[in-house]
Amino acid sequence: MADTIATPAMVWSAIDAVRQANPLVHNLTNYVAMDLSANVLLAAGASPAMVHAREEAGEFAGLSQALVVNIGTLSGHWAEAMVQAADVATERGLPWVLDPVAVGATSFRTKVASDLVARRPTVVRGNASEILSLAGAAGRGRGVDSTDTADDAVQAAAELAGRTGGVVAVTGAVDVVTDGQRTWQVSGGHPLMSRITAMGCAASALVGAFLAVDEDAQAATSAALAILGLAGERAAAGSAGPGSLRWALLDELYALDEPTVLDGVRIHQ
Amino acid sequence: MADTIATPAMVWSAIDAVRQANPLVHNLTNYVAMDLSANVLLAAGASPAMVHAREEAGEFAGLSQALVVNIGTLSGHWAEAMVQAADVATERGLPWVLDPVAVGATSFRTKVASDLVARRPTVVRGNASEILSLAGAAGRGRGVDSTDTADDAVQAAAELAGRTGGVVAVTGAVDVVTDGQRTWQVSGGHPLMSRITAMGCAASALVGAFLAVDEDAQAATSAALAILGLAGERAAAGSAGPGSLRWALLDELYALDEPTVLDGVRIHQ
Amino acid sequence: MADTIATPAMVWSAIDAVRQANPLVHNLTNYVAMDLSANVLLAAGASPAMVHAREEAGEFAGLSQALVVNIGTLSGHWAEAMVQAADVATERGLPWVLDPVAVGATSFRTKVASDLVARRPTVVRGNASEILSLAGAAGRGRGVDSTDTADDAVQAAAELAGRTGGVVAVTGAVDVVTDGQRTWQVSGGHPLMSRITAMGCAASALVGAFLAVDEDAQAATSAALAILGLAGERAAAGSAGPGSLRWALLDELYALDEPTVLDGVRIHQ
Repeated sequence: MADTIATPAMVWSAIDAVRQANPLVHNLTNYVAMDLSANVLLAAGASPAMVHAREEAGEFAGLSQALVVNIGTLSGHWAEAMVQAADVATERGLPWVLDPVAVGATSFRTKVASDLVARRPTVVRGNASEILSLAGAAGRGRGVDSTDTADDAVQAAAELAGRTGGVVAVTGAVDVVTDGQRTWQVSGGHPLMSRITAMGCAASALVGAFLAVDEDAQAATSAALAILGLAGERAAAGSAGPGSLRWALLDELYALDEPTVLDGVRIHQ
Repeated sequence: MADTIATPAMVWSAIDAVRQANPLVHNLTNYVAMDLSANVLLAAGASPAMVHAREEAGEFAGLSQALVVNIGTLSGHWAEAMVQAADVATERGLPWVLDPVAVGATSFRTKVASDLVARRPTVVRGNASEILSLAGAAGRGRGVDSTDTADDAVQAAAELAGRTGGVVAVTGAVDVVTDGQRTWQVSGGHPLMSRITAMGCAASALVGAFLAVDEDAQAATSAALAILGLAGERAAAGSAGPGSLRWALLDELYALDEPTVLDGVRIHQ
Repeated sequence: MADTIATPAMVWSAIDAVRQANPLVHNLTNYVAMDLSANVLLAAGASPAMVHAREEAGEFAGLSQALVVNIGTLSGHWAEAMVQAADVATERGLPWVLDPVAVGATSFRTKVASDLVARRPTVVRGNASEILSLAGAAGRGRGVDSTDTADDAVQAAAELAGRTGGVVAVTGAVDVVTDGQRTWQVSGGHPLMSRITAMGCAASALVGAFLAVDEDAQAATSAALAILGLAGERAAAGSAGPGSLRWALLDELYALDEPTVLDGVRIHQ
């Protein structure tokens, strides 16, 4: 897949692979995101586990097929365990995702994110402000919501990918996925999705599931973002607000079939 | 607004202000309440952030427009961070809300609540048992559910407001909001709302959002409680049980429009 | 009830008792499970509280009518508080439930579960892999999802019950509830329930509520599992996926009436 973008057929194969393999995805994620992340993973056919203690996070990482590290509700002990788990993942050749929630907002958060980036995550997924901040540019984020656009962050994402040697995804109205050389755009989703807490965190968790079954990290990341967007836009069509969208999205994700995916996934250069 | 109660038109203005300003509300809240609080804030048009670590809670408080401190799932480290964040809010003149969940149930909880009350929260919101306990009266609470009524607690609330110099809200079948001199009653809501966990905590979070856009803390608190009650009673009308009520309430809160608010909000003396 | 199984009429009586007594159920449970556990308890008519700190978990346990200890998202401080709370429950003669999530996955987790089992929980509820692991047999669990069946674990459950002097429940397609001598089977539920996170944890929480009103731990456990399964299968009939199942299950649990329970509960030997 070095020269071609991920096709809808490849995305469908990846969905099928997640459903067949039922990969165990180890999450060190924030308190707000745990419920939605676990339910998104289950709806997609993966098996989530949340294990965070320094006493066991490294050992548990070795049992999983992918690791997701999300710094949303950070504390010192959790940061230590995140580093341990990332190191185990790296040693074992397991793919891992970093979600640098609100990096740049406080010096503690920036320090922890920097330590994790230095461990070269397979994928970094953030909003534009977070990716700009990580790349050393001046993001205008405030907390978890981005005030920059994905377009602003494309160059920063490519530079960051050059540093990690992995893939960087900037999610927004259109998602951008780059390995530093190839840059893909993933369309889909619906503005109402931004009114549901932890939707971006759940996207990162779903990327973990796809990394577990697809060695091409850029294709796996794009597939995960594409189907979450597709499920979200289908769910939004019948939702009166964010409350109904949340459960309808899980139903849609669970029910996605081949014709829907072939017809609805839009990944382009 | 010194002499008049908040009118439905004022409530509508406050809703509109939250939707326009999209205030960042910093929550140090309990694990159970995080999801619903964040989703209530997003549905209302605010921007939630949950940041609790001693390493950053104070710094983050300075970035926000309002702070919400909820002692539901307390621990020693969190209590330290709560005090730090409250101190930063006070220094910066930011409004902050204290939700003294289950105060009186254990000596640890009572001690932490007392330390926080001493920092003079802009608003304290609790059930009758919690407010009676905080005011030094003999509440009959057991855990998070109140066995006292809001009426029992009116006098205690006024005394407590006298001590904090702020506003105290006692929520129940009818909510009472007092600044120690003026006492308003907010009608609305539905009994089924008490079968959804963390609904009171979400009310406190929503008070935070309104404090960020309205300098009159009594009016802001009443507006937040009024619209949550209005959304809840509208949602309950079409709900078979607490599961459907939960998501329908978010949809209703998101969709509230001017005629609905002007017709439905009931604040009186 | 020494010689007979729990009848549907007995299950209905237990539901009614929970709704009348509104027992306070103290949960030290995992972050992922808190929301669903609290909402299941509220829908069933019980009163949940989540209190975990070493500073107060023991004191709070003494105020409750039942205790639920779930090791899902474990850490060192929580493990200490779990032991304290279990000791208080034992001293006071309060029933308590152990949910040994993912025991066997890491040495830390296995050690903590072993310390708790040694305190002789009134009920242990787990999936087949967890019960096999606790009983010292070679379970094939990986994380929170079982790869063994309840049938595999029947003998292990009986042995474990012999050691604790309590009841052990193995949940799966058919649930098994044993006191080491009598073994009952509880039918019901729907495969889609396994696509909702923390459903097993919520079952453990509900067992806590029924233990608070029924001294026969085997009957109480069976009743809780039977009605959760009944609510789940009724909800699944109208659900397009796991998103809608989650809220519909809460509605069904809240609405269960005597004819539905008498007709739908299936407990047999």
